[in-house]
Amino acid sequence: MADRQPIGKAELARQLREFIDPHYVIEDAETQKVYECDGLPMYCATPLLVVVPETVDQIQQAMRVCHRHRIPVVARGAGTGLSAGAMPVSDGVVLSLARLTRIVDIDPLARSARVQPGVRNLAISEAAAEHGLYYAPDPSSQIACTIGGNVAENAGGVHCLKYGLTVHNILKLEVITVAGEKVTIGSEGLDTAGCDLLALMIGSEGLLGVVTEVTVKLLPVPQRAQVVMAAFDQVQTAGAAVGEVISRGIVPAGLEMMDSHAIKAAEAFCGAGYPVDAKALLLCELDGTREEVQQGIEQVEHLFLRLGATATRVSHDEAERALLWKGRKSAFPAVGRIAPDYYCMDGTIPRSQLARVLAEIDTLAEHYSLRVANVFHAGDGNLHPLILFDASVPGEFEKTEELGGRILELCVAVGGCITGEHGVGIEKIRQMHVQFDEVELAQFRAIKSAFDAGGTLNPGKGIPVLKRCQEYRALDARASLR
Amino acid sequence: MADRQPIGKAELARQLREFIDPHYVIEDAETQKVYECDGLPMYCATPLLVVVPETVDQIQQAMRVCHRHRIPVVARGAGTGLSAGAMPVSDGVVLSLARLTRIVDIDPLARSARVQPGVRNLAISEAAAEHGLYYAPDPSSQIACTIGGNVAENAGGVHCLKYGLTVHNILKLEVITVAGEKVTIGSEGLDTAGCDLLALMIGSEGLLGVVTEVTVKLLPVPQRAQVVMAAFDQVQTAGAAVGEVISRGIVPAGLEMMDSHAIKAAEAFCGAGYPVDAKALLLCELDGTREEVQQGIEQVEHLFLRLGATATRVSHDEAERALLWKGRKSAFPAVGRIAPDYYCMDGTIPRSQLARVLAEIDTLAEHYSLRVANVFHAGDGNLHPLILFDASVPGEFEKTEELGGRILELCVAVGGCITGEHGVGIEKIRQMHVQFDEVELAQFRAIKSAFDAGGTLNPGKGIPVLKRCQEYRALDARASLR
Repeated sequence: MADRQPIGKAELARQLREFIDPHYVIEDAETQKVYECDGLPMYCATPLLVVVPETVDQIQQAMRVCHRHRIPVVARGAGTGLSAGAMPVSDGVVLSLARLTRIVDIDPLARSARVQPGVRNLAISEAAAEHGLYYAPDPSSQIACTIGGNVAENAGGVHCLKYGLTVHNILKLEVITVAGEKVTIGSEGLDTAGCDLLALMIGSEGLLGVVTEVTVKLLPVPQRAQVVMAAFDQVQTAGAAVGEVISRGIVPAGLEMMDSHAIKAAEAFCGAGYPVDAKALLLCELDGTREEVQQGIEQVEHLFLRLGATATRVSHDEAERALLWKGRKSAFPAVGRIAPDYYCMDGTIPRSQLARVLAEIDTLAEHYSLRVANVFHAGDGNLHPLILFDASVPGEFEKTEELGGRILELCVAVGGCITGEHGVGIEKIRQMHVQFDEVELAQFRAIKSAFDAGGTLNPGKGIPVLKRCQEYRALDARASLR
Repeated sequence: MADRQPIGKAELARQLREFIDPHYVIEDAETQKVYECDGLPMYCATPLLVVVPETVDQIQQAMRVCHRHRIPVVARGAGTGLSAGAMPVSDGVVLSLARLTRIVDIDPLARSARVQPGVRNLAISEAAAEHGLYYAPDPSSQIACTIGGNVAENAGGVHCLKYGLTVHNILKLEVITVAGEKVTIGSEGLDTAGCDLLALMIGSEGLLGVVTEVTVKLLPVPQRAQVVMAAFDQVQTAGAAVGEVISRGIVPAGLEMMDSHAIKAAEAFCGAGYPVDAKALLLCELDGTREEVQQGIEQVEHLFLRLGATATRVSHDEAERALLWKGRKSAFPAVGRIAPDYYCMDGTIPRSQLARVLAEIDTLAEHYSLRVANVFHAGDGNLHPLILFDASVPGEFEKTEELGGRILELCVAVGGCITGEHGVGIEKIRQMHVQFDEVELAQFRAIKSAFDAGGTLNPGKGIPVLKRCQEYRALDARASLR
């Protein structure tokens, strides 16, 4: 950025206040504090300024000011991301989309909703409920996280096995380019002429543009949902059962697995009735019409028992279903009680490798003298190893981070992928060199340049700009543990 | 291309013959003849050379030679495309993928097949049949068209209403870049790290790279399929019925519409038992389990009758189902019998606009003194107006082409799109300026440059490089009617 036109923080703030309510151009360190990291607080930084525009027009103007002066821009939703994708850069602006919270339109006939990026994930389903419709992707953070952030990270959730990730549930985006121009990407029809940029934009972590409106698909709320829980005395047996369910053509709404550490922690936390001596627990939910769910649940329960489940339990009403899920849904905070800190990893493997990878994670954990609890979307092979550690012990986070990296590399080695639903952000940028070769990375960089030649959109995230993995070792992105 | 290294046809052929069987480097005009157009023969050109490599390695080498000498490359499958996407350029090489016909692997557990680009669409389903699986997208040309061509044009078909276009049924691609490098795009899992280039590559008409391997999703063959035919005495009533079926949450496997011209032509051609006095005919197919299909068919038939159908007929066995579809499937050749020539358009509109658009097409046709038959995928709003004309009448094709352009512009005006499943190619490149504004087109050009800075991959197709629509009027792409 040699040709950057120099501009001080005060002058930048002045220019932005010409069209944004002065109160929402945040300069003071205290108010900025909440913006210094996302849901992965190990990575944090203080930005130059935080701006919280109210309209798309203000966003366009802010983008133009930043573009003119080559100021980096980091867009931000609710900050619940888990890969430091929304971490500020110290010489840049954080562009919070928190005030764009309008549900513009719900079209029950077309089964779609047009919403602003700051609308919370769950708020879409709440608004669509009167039409018997809902928005399917359901990240654990759905009460808080925004659809804009979901689009940025291609968020997933328990029900993505059947209904897909964010990328499979978005029809159209309105995007502001780095130069402040407004473009429409995607359409409400099946096909769209020209380059299909929709999937490229989804999961691009704010590197290609700023999303200012999202048209999502809505689905009819299923008549019925039922869950079967199965306990196993071996992780291997549970892993094999997952493969068996899928290969029989059953498409569960969700198929989740928890290991011994996670079962114990969850049960102690909320008393869902989990068998605490089990080595692995599967939760398999089916949804659809009454008849098909009933038939399917019987089939799955029978299958689990035949494949060695030591106990099963089927939900018979909504209260029981909620109870069985309660343990799974509170597994993260539950694990938070059995260790001072935990680090949630995210990677995807072929389902056939489940048992092998879980065994290797155990071996790795032993090598690093760390404990790992596993709570994950088994049906789609999306692992979430939770590494337990104590940040107050010198060197323990570094060890944790190294183990995390080894786990991601293991995912790649078995034919999987370093992401599942949390994105790359800063967290996984080193592993991009493990996942992709130089030709592929060069292609990504060329794409990035096609949208943002100056490299001012969320610099340092998603796509490695440095040539060699090793250079990242020296990177000072991670500031300090908090 | 000022810095092009000059090389003659003979020298190019010599270099290519160093690694490709000399016989498959085609120089003579007679053998080249079959390559001079795709399924839209109004647009044709003679290439410099045609090469038909046998291996991916040969493709990489050929790409390197062409790249070094800045020779344009037009990849080609079976040549069944309908937008002149595979039309040669006179100073370039046609790269035929017809010899890459290997089904590399079928994985019934993962429900996927890895195939070479020259494999015919239907051959995938034939090979997967022993596992009870099939590949869903079914273009009319599925006996002949190749999966590589399907990927290039994002092909559709009758069953795309339920199962999506090609883009919704591909997991992974192996692509050779313009410089001859091999890259992998997509993955077998739900998520993929890095830029999601898969959808971008699908439908990109050979402008971004050459696809050398395709991993497709396979689906279980449905237990049962049944079709209900309904006749209407008004196009409007039939159009409204289409909207009503979809808005009730019924997801037909296919929902097709034919107008009066098409019904008469089809019935005369193959005697499917269509009511020739009907103004519109709907064919609605449902598939799934026996129970749901039976229930659904009853519901749809009842609905059609309530909404004004003058007659209905339900298929009771596979023979009757095949018969009812026979007329629809042979509608194009049937129309070919009632006029010397026809021009098949392809555009998409919101379903709510069906009746209005069909009426406006009638008005336009009258204005141009041409007849238009309509046979189309009503369920997804994908129109295929067939303009009937006589190429031997001077000026009649020009008039036809103008009417075609007006129809595409009408699609855009009602909120639709200039493509449905045939791509842009050369045919619709002028209408790209109607569909997109300059900012969006500039974005497409930047993307194209990110993959192919020299612009040698399938030049002139898909993305307009000229600044103004008018410039295309002077374009000499269309050589002559044949």
